[in-house]
Parts: sequence; C-alpha cells; structure tokens
Amino acid sequence: MKSQNAIYAQSGGVTSVINATASAVIEASRKSKKINKLYAGKDGIIGILNEELIDTSLENSSDIKKLMHTPGGAFGSCRHKLKDVNQSKREYERLIDVFKAHDIGYFFYNGGGDSQDTSNKIAQYTKDAGFPVTCIGIPKTIDNDLPYTDNCPGFGSVAKYIATSASAGLAKSKNNSAPHIILLPEVSFNEKLFLKKVKEVVKKEDYCVIVVSEGAKYKNGKFLADAGTVDSFGHKQLGGVAPRIAEIISNKLGFKYHWAVSDYLQRSARHISSQVDLDHAYAVGKAAVEYASSGENAIMPIIVRKKTKPYSWEVGKVALSKVANIEKKMPKNFISKDGFGITQSCKNYLSPLIQGEAWAPFEDGVIQTASLKNKLIRKKLRNFKI
Amino acid sequence: MKSQNAIYAQSGGVTSVINATASAVIEASRKSKKINKLYAGKDGIIGILNEELIDTSLENSSDIKKLMHTPGGAFGSCRHKLKDVNQSKREYERLIDVFKAHDIGYFFYNGGGDSQDTSNKIAQYTKDAGFPVTCIGIPKTIDNDLPYTDNCPGFGSVAKYIATSASAGLAKSKNNSAPHIILLPEVSFNEKLFLKKVKEVVKKEDYCVIVVSEGAKYKNGKFLADAGTVDSFGHKQLGGVAPRIAEIISNKLGFKYHWAVSDYLQRSARHISSQVDLDHAYAVGKAAVEYASSGENAIMPIIVRKKTKPYSWEVGKVALSKVANIEKKMPKNFISKDGFGITQSCKNYLSPLIQGEAWAPFEDGVIQTASLKNKLIRKKLRNFKI
Repeated sequence: MKSQNAIYAQSGGVTSVINATASAVIEASRKSKKINKLYAGKDGIIGILNEELIDTSLENSSDIKKLMHTPGGAFGSCRHKLKDVNQSKREYERLIDVFKAHDIGYFFYNGGGDSQDTSNKIAQYTKDAGFPVTCIGIPKTIDNDLPYTDNCPGFGSVAKYIATSASAGLAKSKNNSAPHIILLPEVSFNEKLFLKKVKEVVKKEDYCVIVVSEGAKYKNGKFLADAGTVDSFGHKQLGGVAPRIAEIISNKLGFKYHWAVSDYLQRSARHISSQVDLDHAYAVGKAAVEYASSGENAIMPIIVRKKTKPYSWEVGKVALSKVANIEKKMPKNFISKDGFGITQSCKNYLSPLIQGEAWAPFEDGVIQTASLKNKLIRKKLRNFKI
Repeated sequence: MKSQNAIYAQSGGVTSVINATASAVIEASRKSKKINKLYAGKDGIIGILNEELIDTSLENSSDIKKLMHTPGGAFGSCRHKLKDVNQSKREYERLIDVFKAHDIGYFFYNGGGDSQDTSNKIAQYTKDAGFPVTCIGIPKTIDNDLPYTDNCPGFGSVAKYIATSASAGLAKSKNNSAPHIILLPEVSFNEKLFLKKVKEVVKKEDYCVIVVSEGAKYKNGKFLADAGTVDSFGHKQLGGVAPRIAEIISNKLGFKYHWAVSDYLQRSARHISSQVDLDHAYAVGKAAVEYASSGENAIMPIIVRKKTKPYSWEVGKVALSKVANIEKKMPKNFISKDGFGITQSCKNYLSPLIQGEAWAPFEDGVIQTASLKNKLIRKKLRNFKI
C-alpha cells in the first residue's frame, strides 16, 4: 500500500481539549509511514468542500506541542451536515474531486454524533466510487452522548468546570452540598415538584444552587427555553433556560436569584481542564492515525474503562456504522429517585473523568496558546458553491 | 486603652478572594493586643442586627489559612443598606445595643461603596451616642469603582478570568486580538456604530468576540437590558444584556451567535484568581486590623501603586468620609477613540492586576475549601425585626 496524504478536520462546538487531539493526529501522522502530508480543513468540512486546506507540515513541532494547552479550534470548526447521499450526491462528488486532486487517502473527522455519521457516509461513498478513502471518526463532544465509548473527550473538563464553579459559588460552613438541584434532559420538568424542592432546600440551607441542562424539557417534549430556531444540523437552537428558571422561581416563590450561562466559558476553560480528559483527547487522536495506518477503516477509537477504582482505561474501537446517529442517554441508575440529582453510581462514573489539573503555562497573566501559521495550499480545482 | 471585642462582616457580592481578606482580619486580630475576640456577622450586617455573631476564635488556624483558597463568603453576605440616620435611628440604636452587649470596640466592614458609607455612618453615630466604636472599611468589589484606592480587591481576578476566557474562546492563527469589541458603561451605546464595527470585525476576522458590561446604556440613560427591578440598595437590578446584544446582531446582521453570562462563574472562579489580587485582598485585611489597633478610625485601607513597570505597591489609607458614596468612573484616557475598546494606558494599568496564578489545592478533582464551624455565640438581647 503506497503512502498518501491525509486530511484532519474539526467539527461542531469546540472543547478545551480538542486541540490535544489535533496535536496527537499531527504528531502521529508525522511518524506514520502511510501518511505523507497531513492537511487540516479550514473551518471543518466546509474548508474541504472549498478546497481550503491548511498545510500542517509547515508548523514546527513546538507549536504542535503548544496545541496541548490551546483551547478552541486551532483550524476552525463548523456545523455543516452533508445531505443524505440519496438526496444529493453533489457534496460527495466534490469531496472526491478534492481528495483526488490532493492525493488524499485518509480522512480524520473530529466531532460528535453527526460527524461520525458523516465519516461513515464518506467511507462508503468513496469506496463505491472507486476511490476508497480511509475514514476514521474521532470522538469529541461535551455532551458525552456518543455510544460505545465510556466517555467523550471534552466532557470531563466541562464536568470539572461545572463541579468546581457550582460548588464554589457559595462556600459555606460544614456541608457544602451544592449543586442542590440538577435538571436533566432525561427527566421531564415538573414545575410543581421543582418549586417544592427549591423551597425545601432554601429552608434548610438558606440558599439553593441549581444546575440546568439546556436540554431540559416539559413532559410534552417542549424545551423549557425553546428559542424556536434551528441550527444547520436541523437541531433546535436552545438558550435562555437559566433566565427562564430564574423567572419561574421569582414569580412563584419570590426568591432573589442570580443566573449564569456557561456556554463558551466552559468550552474555552483550558485553565481548568481535567488531566484525564486531556489524556483521553490525545489518546483517541493518536489511535485514529495508528488504526488508519494499520489498515482499519470506518471506525472510531473509543475510551474503554477497565476499572473505576483505581481508575484504569485503554483505547478500543467501534465500527462507525454502529455509532452513527445514535445518541447515548444518561443511564437510569445515574438519576436519583426524585429526579433532581445524581446517584452514587453516577458520581463513581464521573469522578475519574474530572481528576487531575492539566497544567497550562501563563504569560503576562493569560494562558499562552499556540500561534499557528495556518497556511493554505494552492487550489487546483474550480470554486464550489456550498 | 483597654482591649475589646471586634466584629468583621462581609457585604454585597462575593469575590474569589474576599475570604483572603477574612483570613487576614482573623489572623491579625489574633495577634492584636487591642482585640479580644473577633466575631463575624452571619450574612453580613443582617447578622449583627439579628445578634447572630459567629465566634471565629473556635476555628483552628489551618482552616483560617484555607480561607485563602476558599471562594464565596465564608460567613455569608447580604445587600442591606442602613437607612439614613435622619430618617430612622432604629437600626443604629440596635447596633449600639449589640455592640454594648458584646463589648464591641471595633467594626470591620468588607464591601463596596455602600458599605464604606455604612461604616462611616456607624463611626459617627456611635461616637455621638457616647459608645465610640472604631470603624474600618475594607475595600472589596469586582466593579473596581471605589475612589482613592488604585484598584479594588476582587477586580483583578475577574479581569483575569474575563481576559483568559474571552481570548481563549476562539484561539485562531496569528493575531488573536479577541475581545474585539468592549461595551463600557462609560460610553453611550450607539446601535448603528456598533453594528458597523461588528460587520467590520467579522469581515476581517471571520468572527467577533464582544464583552459587554451589564451597565452598558443608551444615550438617554436607559440600560440595554433594563429588568425594571431594584435591589435593596435601590440600585436597578440588571441582567440579560448578553441575549439582548445577540438579538440585535441576529436581527440586524443575520449572524449566528453564542452568548454567555459570567455572573457568579467569575465571582467564584478561585481556580483562576490573580496572585496580585489575592495579595492585595490579604494586605487590606491585615492593614485594617493594624490601623484599628494603632488608634485609627473611620478610614479605609487602600492600594497605592508606586510603580507600574516593574509593578510595586503598598497599602495606604483614606478617610471614609471621602470614599462614601463616590463611584469612580473609568478614566477617559482608558477608552479608545471609537469607544469600543481600551487604550494602551488602560492595558498598562490592568496588566499588573492580573499577574500570577494563585495556586489552589484540588482534591478529588475539585477545589479544596475551608470547612468552618461557624458557631454562633449566645444571644443576650431580645429579637429585632429588620
């Protein structure tokens, strides 16, 4: 098997450790005998369609190392879902044109469920079209909703951020059991029971810390804060659940409140990334290249938990066809009886994922990040209208 | 001068370093020959009015040290402003009753502008009433709006949090100049100019990071997101300026957006406190007790900047009468010509305040905090209705 070029692309919302995966893919590709040059899609798959390919071989190895502590998406990201093949072949044909023009034999796509689906479709389409490209999906999502993998890189750091912030909000005497209430997407929101619980906690503790998932919804399926808009994956765009909950509490109980929305504050918080999460993010990137180099195709590296206490793990793999478009839900035994909290089983699961404070170098008071050249290679094809 | 007991109380919104001040007040009081026991007001001045006094002498010194890395208000806080003496003497009389009952000779009040005003009034009232209590105000506010002091403890850590988060949000190639736009309370919001600037930045950088002060307002004085409610100091309660700006951008320019609200996420972020800020917070607490012990009254310790580069500072003092109810504005030469950013002078001022990463010990993935007993002393007076 002759060596070919490869493309790596980032997709969806970034995490504080997604660039650790990028760092691993680049370092492993440089070592692989099967891979010549590794290109990165500018702004994810959009850059591939536009033939905007960043030549990562121009970056020096110290900058690639710095990606380990650089939050955000080093090459840009996007939320663009390819149409179904049966609906429109146009984008797939374009991808093949780009792959052919630049002798691409490997495609690494770093994202959540939709990206795994996309990788799987491209693997199938390029094979059917007689220009087979090895496609490896690399897990990344703060939502932790990919199946088969024990957890998704990016999630552990957000869990650490939220756990630290929520419990730190009001450090009081003795039993600081904040957050007191967690509203999960898996449990239908019942306003009456919720308000009763808030009242109880405030009576006992003088205050109440509530963590709300943006996916929290009523029994009828309506989101608590349905903005009515959809993103390009066709998902409903959410936001504003915090002020909605604050409003309910203020109107019905008359309590004072503060609300915060973590959004990109949590996604970009590399200063409080979990070391275990960072290790996972690097490991799946490295494994992706190694699997591809050893002839694997249409798979996704996964994190396999070998033991919870003391924590041990290894990297495994699963076929993309099994992962694509399947959303893992929170196990029922992770949710407390009253639906407003998590069980000891859940805490046992979460605990290893937030361990370790991944050091990041600061300079002049702020985190030092990689400064990549991100130079595009010369285009060979005509422009394409997405 | 015989030795007497003292009371320390926290007021207003907490910061990630307010307990460093508490730690200093407790440690210095233990050393002071003028101070017998140091009590802490439970939930600020409300606790003093309710005769709910925490006996800090029961806390061991290792827990007092742990306050250095414990965010939030260790003894609770409140937003309660005493009425003007001419309007109602009732609360002042009650304070004197409590002070007399517990042999209080010193009062340390840790807060912003309103708290300095309160301290000043109590100093005057107790003197006039023939039971003079030494009142020292200790600066604390993330708003950085107290006069005379170079900066307010609590502010530097929030500046560090925002600088790190805003610049980390989208770590791109080369010139990462985020945040690109800052909306300050000192500059009237002009929607047309703002949208023009957003368009320019997005054209050049593909994205635009905007930091908005909750105090941002229109030319007519109306806040961008006026919730129409007021807190107990009579200040308008604000919130929701981020979704408001997002809405304007979406409606007028059609751009996609993400918004976050830092609120208590920044106030409680002890994991990214500035070392300089922590040092300041400790220093003003220590100085407060030392000034009081040496016979000073009705003053506030301040941070005096001796030099910006290399940074050096010392603690000074100012009369409370000069501080009370004066809100320091951002100097005009700190604001860029177009009003959407800060000048080099401002950056020079800010830079020393965000230096150093104040280490905090983690245990099991989250910050380790002090676990105080917070035991109340026996009441001697009748109940009081606030």
